[in-house]
Amino acid sequence: MQAVWLEDNALSLRQDIPIPAPSSGEALVKVRLAGICATDLEMVRGYYPFTGIPGHEFVGEVVTAWGDTKLSGCRVTGEINITCGQCRACLAGRRTHCEKRTTLGIRGRDGVFAEYLTLPLENLHCVPDAVDDEAAVFTEPLAAALEIQEQVAIHPGERILLIGAGRLGQLIAQTLALTGCELQVVARHDAQRKLLEAFGIATIAEGEVQAGRWDIVVEASGSAPGFALARQAVRPRGVIVLKSTFKGNSEVNLSSLVVDEISLVGSRCGPFPAALRLLGAGRVQPKPLISGRYPLSKALAAFDKASLPGVMKILLEPG
Amino acid sequence: MQAVWLEDNALSLRQDIPIPAPSSGEALVKVRLAGICATDLEMVRGYYPFTGIPGHEFVGEVVTAWGDTKLSGCRVTGEINITCGQCRACLAGRRTHCEKRTTLGIRGRDGVFAEYLTLPLENLHCVPDAVDDEAAVFTEPLAAALEIQEQVAIHPGERILLIGAGRLGQLIAQTLALTGCELQVVARHDAQRKLLEAFGIATIAEGEVQAGRWDIVVEASGSAPGFALARQAVRPRGVIVLKSTFKGNSEVNLSSLVVDEISLVGSRCGPFPAALRLLGAGRVQPKPLISGRYPLSKALAAFDKASLPGVMKILLEPG
Repeated sequence: MQAVWLEDNALSLRQDIPIPAPSSGEALVKVRLAGICATDLEMVRGYYPFTGIPGHEFVGEVVTAWGDTKLSGCRVTGEINITCGQCRACLAGRRTHCEKRTTLGIRGRDGVFAEYLTLPLENLHCVPDAVDDEAAVFTEPLAAALEIQEQVAIHPGERILLIGAGRLGQLIAQTLALTGCELQVVARHDAQRKLLEAFGIATIAEGEVQAGRWDIVVEASGSAPGFALARQAVRPRGVIVLKSTFKGNSEVNLSSLVVDEISLVGSRCGPFPAALRLLGAGRVQPKPLISGRYPLSKALAAFDKASLPGVMKILLEPG
Repeated sequence: MQAVWLEDNALSLRQDIPIPAPSSGEALVKVRLAGICATDLEMVRGYYPFTGIPGHEFVGEVVTAWGDTKLSGCRVTGEINITCGQCRACLAGRRTHCEKRTTLGIRGRDGVFAEYLTLPLENLHCVPDAVDDEAAVFTEPLAAALEIQEQVAIHPGERILLIGAGRLGQLIAQTLALTGCELQVVARHDAQRKLLEAFGIATIAEGEVQAGRWDIVVEASGSAPGFALARQAVRPRGVIVLKSTFKGNSEVNLSSLVVDEISLVGSRCGPFPAALRLLGAGRVQPKPLISGRYPLSKALAAFDKASLPGVMKILLEPG
């Protein structure tokens, strides 16, 4: 089959990859649409060593499902952590932190920038008819956005600052706006601001962010200056949610976190069922974020496009 | 009056300091006992620029109380943040984070290593008869220990690792032990371990701390290696409570906090009434932590002693 291949931080398009064979308990899924995310771009830059097919955001159609014929033909999206079910984290209910996990297109498991993929049945979620492919492909990043509210209680009276309005930031903005809180977003690019304004979400210039005013600051810019701004903006006893990964260490004054009693909360993968509910009800609208749609055969051009400043979601469509 | 004086990171003993005059709403308090804390030692090392009388842990006797004659003669301890009552933080009920605060013996306000001090009446707490001076002088650090439980819910089934068993660490250990949780403490010195063992609190060697096992890790060692150990020890979705201050920045891998969904919680001043209740009931026993008691006239020797490894609480007694 055709697939994107990542090796030694270089991407190529290959035609010679065998269609994967599902193991016991797994399904073979034909990819309908896949999305390029910031993590994919970071991986090409060397954030994480990986050799294989990248990509983890997808909607597809079940071709064969081990022992579950009802699933065949269903449109599905899938959770990206493949877990052992037996380690301390799995037994404690923290399956996305499985100690032996592989992660679709990120660690130890081929991903979705291909014609086919395999996943355990327990990772799959059927997509309701009300959610078309172009919305369903956002299920994974939307779930990640919702993880913030799994971790931090957001009260409607609070002031929340979101730093970063890229692919993930836009989805976070839409979910936070649903809480009724006073939300403002630091967006670097005009296109990002226009998208937010179309949803009635307020933006604020970086230079106008008031120090020590914000109850909760979500850092989704994936940059050291973004963290510095978050630290400056959050009020004493406030919370900084870290929602993006980037290479390298940061200089943090831990004593100032003590004096101001700040909490930092790292946040990663979130609940798929909630994401599908919001998409099905139209309460989150991801399709305006689509900046381009490329056939899988043009995946390298799609990656180039996705790397440009201000570009939002680029989709890949196999054959 | 006699007082310790800190200027340009150097301590001296002075005889020429005037007895302070209480302003409206304040009390004049005669110091009965004062305690030397790690923050005092850090200040001498330049952690925070301060010129004046250091010290913030005390028990004293009210000499005069503006408009409240009932207080005269009462034994009191006192909260160390002097607040404006009108800023955003005060109006939001976060008085220890008052934007215009001064802090007894730390910032903008002379402290307690002297014969007398002044504090607003609202900062004072009467000491019950059941709490003698040598216990009452621990009210402030015990309240700081209890702040952990104001911020983080501690469930009896959890595994908690405390790193650091110095002055504050010992009090934290005693309060955490009251929750019924599985507590183990990394203590550097034999004397520290013996104190913990006398209270039935388990210790663990640094080299035996299991990676990724601990639900909550409290960092009270005030050192960069302590933070590194905490990061290694905490489980995914666990909490690291930062309970000590030290000079300079730390290198932190923020992305790993995201991947493991770790929370860092800075923690500072806590509830005095709860501390006095626990002291009054004998549920926390600070007096075994006393390593020495010096007259105020020997304060410089007392500071030297307090700086030695493994030395616990050193008390100063005026006149």
